[in-house]
Amino acid sequence: MSDTANKNRAPIGIFDSGVGGLTVARHLYKLLPEEDVVYFGDVGRTPYGGRSKEIITRFTRQDIAFLLEHDVKLIICACNSASSVALDELVKEHTIKMLGVIQPGVEAAVKRTGNGRIGVIGTNATIGSNAYASRIHLIDPKIKVFSLACPLFVPLAEEGYIDKEATYLIARDYLKTMHEVGIDTLVLGCTHYPLLKQVISDVMGDKVALIDSGEETARVAHDTLIGTGLLRPSDGTESTGERRYFVSDVPEKFEHVARKFLGEPINKITRVDISGY
Amino acid sequence: MSDTANKNRAPIGIFDSGVGGLTVARHLYKLLPEEDVVYFGDVGRTPYGGRSKEIITRFTRQDIAFLLEHDVKLIICACNSASSVALDELVKEHTIKMLGVIQPGVEAAVKRTGNGRIGVIGTNATIGSNAYASRIHLIDPKIKVFSLACPLFVPLAEEGYIDKEATYLIARDYLKTMHEVGIDTLVLGCTHYPLLKQVISDVMGDKVALIDSGEETARVAHDTLIGTGLLRPSDGTESTGERRYFVSDVPEKFEHVARKFLGEPINKITRVDISGY
Repeated sequence: MSDTANKNRAPIGIFDSGVGGLTVARHLYKLLPEEDVVYFGDVGRTPYGGRSKEIITRFTRQDIAFLLEHDVKLIICACNSASSVALDELVKEHTIKMLGVIQPGVEAAVKRTGNGRIGVIGTNATIGSNAYASRIHLIDPKIKVFSLACPLFVPLAEEGYIDKEATYLIARDYLKTMHEVGIDTLVLGCTHYPLLKQVISDVMGDKVALIDSGEETARVAHDTLIGTGLLRPSDGTESTGERRYFVSDVPEKFEHVARKFLGEPINKITRVDISGY
Repeated sequence: MSDTANKNRAPIGIFDSGVGGLTVARHLYKLLPEEDVVYFGDVGRTPYGGRSKEIITRFTRQDIAFLLEHDVKLIICACNSASSVALDELVKEHTIKMLGVIQPGVEAAVKRTGNGRIGVIGTNATIGSNAYASRIHLIDPKIKVFSLACPLFVPLAEEGYIDKEATYLIARDYLKTMHEVGIDTLVLGCTHYPLLKQVISDVMGDKVALIDSGEETARVAHDTLIGTGLLRPSDGTESTGERRYFVSDVPEKFEHVARKFLGEPINKITRVDISGY
């Protein structure tokens, strides 16, 4: 039996600073229902988006070390902040295939724009890193990129302020400039933002296409498993893979919020002391 | 020279999960301008308010260990979440005098209420601990206490959403029940909330007295130093004490937000790796 044959039954590892990565898991489960998945949510140190590159890199290194213990075949960094500021450095430390959420969002946005004007919204860390803009320009330097941090979107999504007037007011306030500069494509550069998709879409109008980086990343993960021969071979039963969740604080809040992000209840949540990794 | 004579020139130590404790420092500076102060803000792991008792206790133990290295004469835990869930356990581990923000707020509220109906607002950790209600009932079991978590107030205050319509909408939403139950006193049980005092006051009306736990704590700190003979002896110059700030991530954001919380710019900010304590 070859190495690949052994490895293709291994789980996919996903990690995020907290619950946001579940919006990526949701798309992954749709595309790859038979795969086993190990999800780590760093709820004990969430959110990453307002922290420095150095702190985010330290936390991310520990998240990866934890997933590696589970002999995963692929690691998905579902956190935009970590993907933006830490992943380029950390992929050099490991041989395992790792995917961040930036590049898939970048490629989808470049493909989608007609007028060459793309907006990107995300956390302070993601926007401050310029990760989206610099990668868009690697593909097409002529595209105009407008980047904006929307820090209140994360707590609003977590607190279930999904369709409230206050959220519309804040979204209009944040996105006013995006309107004025005439973008035709807007990247949701934070895994929390898909929960506010309706608000953002209403505010931006139907002429602006919204790109969900998480959804694009799930697609790339699917293609990567096929390309590398690591897709789990079907056993003919079409059974759903095992999905295990690990968190760095008590699991109650994660469990409660998870339903909103994943669209279904979860169980099998184990607590882990991430500071030891 | 006695121990007290040596000790009374030592600095006061204050710590908080981040910037919020600066609203306590602000009142302390007014009452005790000549005292030296060492402030630690755990911005690398902020906010505490949504985390478990266990995690908050671990973080708080490290914060205290850091301040003890500076030979402080008094420790003020300016974080309501840490004061609520961790401090009772941690005061047992040290001989140094420690003050939390709960008891001063409790005493002021009990003194202030006329109709025996007190409201308390705070983070999930503070409200979940029932710390305010249980201490109010130790003084007067007949007082009716209504407690409510307002998790969006912290990010709104930090993002400067102080007098925006969205903040009014969220405040009206949160505080509706407080209106209905007829409280005459409302405890601001989170050091971020004084920044939203105007909004909260407008929503609650002028018949409801707002108690700022941080302001009350500064008063108690003042009285404690006098009572224990630890007040810094005046050298006749009325010079301002030395105020040093330590944070657990890069200081830029702290420095930026500090002005709003403290009412004046700060310098002398040093970064510390709190995970090593």
